[in-house]
Amino acid sequence: MSSVIVKQPFVISGYGIYLPDEIETSKELSSKINKTEDWIISRTGVVERRISSIDVDKMGAIAAEQAIGDKSKPDLIINASGVPKQTIPDSSVFIQKELGYSGIPSFSVHSTCISFITALNVASSLISSKTYNKILIVSSDRGTRGRNFNEPESASLLGDAAAAVYLESCNDNDKGLVSYTMQTFPEGSDLTEVRGGGTNLHPQDPTTENSDNLFSMNGPLVYKMARKTVYNMISSDLINNQLTQKDINLVVPHQASGMAVKAYSKFGGFEEHKVVDIISTTGNCVAASLPLALCTAYYDNRIKDNDLIYLVGTGAGLTIASFLLKI
Amino acid sequence: MSSVIVKQPFVISGYGIYLPDEIETSKELSSKINKTEDWIISRTGVVERRISSIDVDKMGAIAAEQAIGDKSKPDLIINASGVPKQTIPDSSVFIQKELGYSGIPSFSVHSTCISFITALNVASSLISSKTYNKILIVSSDRGTRGRNFNEPESASLLGDAAAAVYLESCNDNDKGLVSYTMQTFPEGSDLTEVRGGGTNLHPQDPTTENSDNLFSMNGPLVYKMARKTVYNMISSDLINNQLTQKDINLVVPHQASGMAVKAYSKFGGFEEHKVVDIISTTGNCVAASLPLALCTAYYDNRIKDNDLIYLVGTGAGLTIASFLLKI
Repeated sequence: MSSVIVKQPFVISGYGIYLPDEIETSKELSSKINKTEDWIISRTGVVERRISSIDVDKMGAIAAEQAIGDKSKPDLIINASGVPKQTIPDSSVFIQKELGYSGIPSFSVHSTCISFITALNVASSLISSKTYNKILIVSSDRGTRGRNFNEPESASLLGDAAAAVYLESCNDNDKGLVSYTMQTFPEGSDLTEVRGGGTNLHPQDPTTENSDNLFSMNGPLVYKMARKTVYNMISSDLINNQLTQKDINLVVPHQASGMAVKAYSKFGGFEEHKVVDIISTTGNCVAASLPLALCTAYYDNRIKDNDLIYLVGTGAGLTIASFLLKI
Repeated sequence: MSSVIVKQPFVISGYGIYLPDEIETSKELSSKINKTEDWIISRTGVVERRISSIDVDKMGAIAAEQAIGDKSKPDLIINASGVPKQTIPDSSVFIQKELGYSGIPSFSVHSTCISFITALNVASSLISSKTYNKILIVSSDRGTRGRNFNEPESASLLGDAAAAVYLESCNDNDKGLVSYTMQTFPEGSDLTEVRGGGTNLHPQDPTTENSDNLFSMNGPLVYKMARKTVYNMISSDLINNQLTQKDINLVVPHQASGMAVKAYSKFGGFEEHKVVDIISTTGNCVAASLPLALCTAYYDNRIKDNDLIYLVGTGAGLTIASFLLKI
């Protein structure tokens, strides 16, 4: 394996997930959207998804408690979710409240489905600049609250989950951030939207329709735009770090859709067994999907010391991002 | 003046504001909330506020264009506002779109009214870790969209504005971040809220009431809780940096209320003429208030080379934060 240079040292010393007990199969969903089970599975790759009856703060806190384990309380809590519990205050406050803490600085980082990668880079920088030593990142999304059953494809994709990681500074300069890339293309801003919930189509505005408050995505156009930009990002990330696909031990992508996850092996050049693919049982869990895939890989013992992990994904924006991480 | 140690060097090389043309006087507002003009001014300190007819992305882009001036396009755009344009994508995408850019990484940092301080610290860290060299921070809030006229005090406070700053790395190790402090106290989470707009009281939820989508604040309780915690933060910030109030050239507080701004001189020990106070003509502009006060001080030539500026404020959470900045 090629040697890589760690630019910002840190370690992931804890991880946790929350998957709600309630399972909704694609067969159960099919009647709600007037499509067959086969249509759903062939279009989205999602066989079943979880439905949460508790809100994002409680979901996130359950994952966070596992990530914290018997370690000391973090110096900072970053919420990195796609949709908040409420407009004000930001969800990090409610996650901290559920954890029983007080006085810990907390805020939210938001870049929709790739919020976790953005937050990981912010956290890595804050550890590198010695602002904080121990940072908890929590991604918790309850996308099924915003499903539009009149838009069968996006409604079939969404599922609920939460995941959390605990980062710590480390003296070992061989673990942490190797490279980080992010690009935002506003020409794709109308391809994935929840148009309501803010100052534009305010809930009290008579012109706001119910569908404005629900998730809307033009899957085929997102896929088309994302495939090319992500392919270019992967190519330049590998070249810049003097690596080939074979040097990457595990690819952890955002679980946008079955087709999007498969594209990392089909077009991205990574061997299929190296790409974490959990979409069939969890769906697209918005910002929680990527850390859920990462933590699931930890639980499944697919990540070991010195591994080179490539976190990668696309989000509404259209935004693309990657994070090359040395374990 | 005592010498201070700059921990993370950067300079503010551009700044800009947007104040909507439309002025609503407290006399005009008085009939909408069944209170007298005198009641409003004595309770809030707000004589008039601006009402925007354009949305937060356009407001922010106007301020950003001034901040960018004839400089090159930034490496990163951070939206640091209290309330978004819409739920997905985050507002940074729409601000970038208004600016006519494409491909610039962008995301949002959210900690309600002190989002700007949080974003400034994130940006300072990202510059310090050499992730980016030129960062645009935009705060844009249209609080008047969420006024609850049945809650006269908070409805009187809110106003609309945007402000932006352009940060650059610098070789002068004597300019930039001296110290940063943040604390979040979730026991105050119900004192300042917009309960709707997220997964909890979702717009489509039949139990969600119109008032859930509007701004609600228990001003007296926030003031009581904030005064003590902010006083302690100021004291420890000064001690930790071996400074006294006299060493600070300018205090730039969040414009929470007339009483809150005055508390920095009355109880905080700073001379009144050193505390930037713009609330009477702009109201509380949520996250835009603090950078609006900072940029106004720049426009008024109240900030000069080598000054020591103390940015400080409180936000929903309850969150308190400060940023000691060497110009």
